[in-house]
Amino acid sequence: MSLPATIIWDDVNLQLRLLDQRRLPETVDYLEINHLSEACEAISSLAVRGAPAIGIAAAYALVVCTSQVPTGQLAATMETAATALKSARPTAVNLAWAVNRLLDVCRAGGGLQQLHLEAQAIHQQDREICLAIGRAGRHLITPGCRILTHCNAGALAVSELGTATAPMYLSHRDGVEFKVYADETRPLLQGARLTAWELDQAGIDVTLICDNAAASLMAKGEIDLVMVGTDRVTANGDVVNKIGTLNLAVLCHHFKIPFYVACPSSTFDPGTATGAQVEIEQRAATEVTDGRAARVKALNPAFDVTPAALVTALITDRGLLDYRTENPLAALSQTAH
Amino acid sequence: MSLPATIIWDDVNLQLRLLDQRRLPETVDYLEINHLSEACEAISSLAVRGAPAIGIAAAYALVVCTSQVPTGQLAATMETAATALKSARPTAVNLAWAVNRLLDVCRAGGGLQQLHLEAQAIHQQDREICLAIGRAGRHLITPGCRILTHCNAGALAVSELGTATAPMYLSHRDGVEFKVYADETRPLLQGARLTAWELDQAGIDVTLICDNAAASLMAKGEIDLVMVGTDRVTANGDVVNKIGTLNLAVLCHHFKIPFYVACPSSTFDPGTATGAQVEIEQRAATEVTDGRAARVKALNPAFDVTPAALVTALITDRGLLDYRTENPLAALSQTAH
Repeated sequence: MSLPATIIWDDVNLQLRLLDQRRLPETVDYLEINHLSEACEAISSLAVRGAPAIGIAAAYALVVCTSQVPTGQLAATMETAATALKSARPTAVNLAWAVNRLLDVCRAGGGLQQLHLEAQAIHQQDREICLAIGRAGRHLITPGCRILTHCNAGALAVSELGTATAPMYLSHRDGVEFKVYADETRPLLQGARLTAWELDQAGIDVTLICDNAAASLMAKGEIDLVMVGTDRVTANGDVVNKIGTLNLAVLCHHFKIPFYVACPSSTFDPGTATGAQVEIEQRAATEVTDGRAARVKALNPAFDVTPAALVTALITDRGLLDYRTENPLAALSQTAH
Repeated sequence: MSLPATIIWDDVNLQLRLLDQRRLPETVDYLEINHLSEACEAISSLAVRGAPAIGIAAAYALVVCTSQVPTGQLAATMETAATALKSARPTAVNLAWAVNRLLDVCRAGGGLQQLHLEAQAIHQQDREICLAIGRAGRHLITPGCRILTHCNAGALAVSELGTATAPMYLSHRDGVEFKVYADETRPLLQGARLTAWELDQAGIDVTLICDNAAASLMAKGEIDLVMVGTDRVTANGDVVNKIGTLNLAVLCHHFKIPFYVACPSSTFDPGTATGAQVEIEQRAATEVTDGRAARVKALNPAFDVTPAALVTALITDRGLLDYRTENPLAALSQTAH
């Protein structure tokens, strides 16, 4: 793989640079994050995106913020910055999870060095988690397999292997031949701009389709499985992910195609009972209207909720999890494909 | 309604002008059609689109072509022009239907004047058919109803009232309050550029959404029915329509929402047994890639096939038709909503 790094952290000068994913694939450029407002803006505008990546970026951003104030102001700075960062993208549970890890360190009396170590630990754990997800899911990709994916749960969304793409990257390294269809993922086209680009860069056979073409391919028997990421999994196994994920899950159910969701354990939100309780981020209508028909109203929910019953299995760093079984934690084994 | 006409025919000078729908809604401009190649280009590039509208445009184009040659060459000119026009969009059965009507007149010895009358008759019948479709479907739109539509089967696709929009326009004139969600309809965005625009111009409450948001709205109980058009209905009742229609039909089936398809009788293709026999037009990959990620392959089927079993009823100029009943022609009555 010759992909540029999503997050570059200078651990000597405590400087954070984020790949500006809004400009991909035409331009590979980095944003320097020197202030809290820059970090919040990078997260809310999707310059950095993907649940794990924004968690890592937020953790490093907290280190940057606290490195700029005297020790006596560190705790107050942390509290203010943590609140602002968490509200930059309310749906992504990893963001709050990462920020809370640093908050806990701070509240326990930790100083800048401890915060720095904690941020680096989050980053390192993410690399290990992606590898574990890849190992948990690689057996699902058999030779000749045709996979459909949605949005970008790839290397650009995390560190290294991605989540939904981790089984693909490992299988590709093993020499397994398979084919990926990437939904373009309107309105922000993360599939067209990011997933198709990164898989192609890695030498994986990828074909871009409009979101509208998924049912047509499935009806013709040209999709063997769907593999997507998620921003949050609620206690009952409901999956909150990019708008359009529920469409695919319903189509998979109808056409009897396995529907897999890859995610790190940090995506689990045991404090929220079901997807119905999750606040869905509503984004600007202009992302949909694209400047056309300016008078016309538009609705732009960023996520939808896929009921646990439609998910064949979660591919996690702890193995495959099937919430449709009575005891999800007992399902920590390979499910039949 | 203050919509510009889709097709302007000068019946004195035999001149054809087509609203260039590729440039809507920003620019309202007309293409003059003086040659066969211009007519074919206007149809294949979707300057004129919508199954009935391209049938009418092709009929007038044949009049233009035959008016330019001596009487002795009329028959040969008709044959050549008819073949070229029919291949400009192979999926739309109305195109071949309209062209064949003029061919029949010509083969029966009809001259320019008879061809002209036949083209005008096709146009007039279309106006009447739209009104009949509107009358057949208006009772489905009850006060407070929330309708989802896909692509553009509106006034821009035909003459006057449209097909899928005809019940909406009649209900709106009756003072019924209802709400329409328009799928943007990637890749060519006919919903965003045309449907949202024409309904808004007509004063109907319309909200644009990404195709990906349909399942999310349905899951929340915010869609009461789906109403779309079609390019071809095969003998068994399968519906060939814009890519993404099958997605909606499967979602409606899952969420128990009525799925209606509005069409003139000329859309029926009794000579084709099922949708599986229909050649699906594959359009250029660049419509999907939009210049991005140029190295990446893309697949761009223009249509999909919705099985008859997923269609609640066809709204036709002959009334509501339910192909799921044993004898479809016996179902020429109002079905329960």
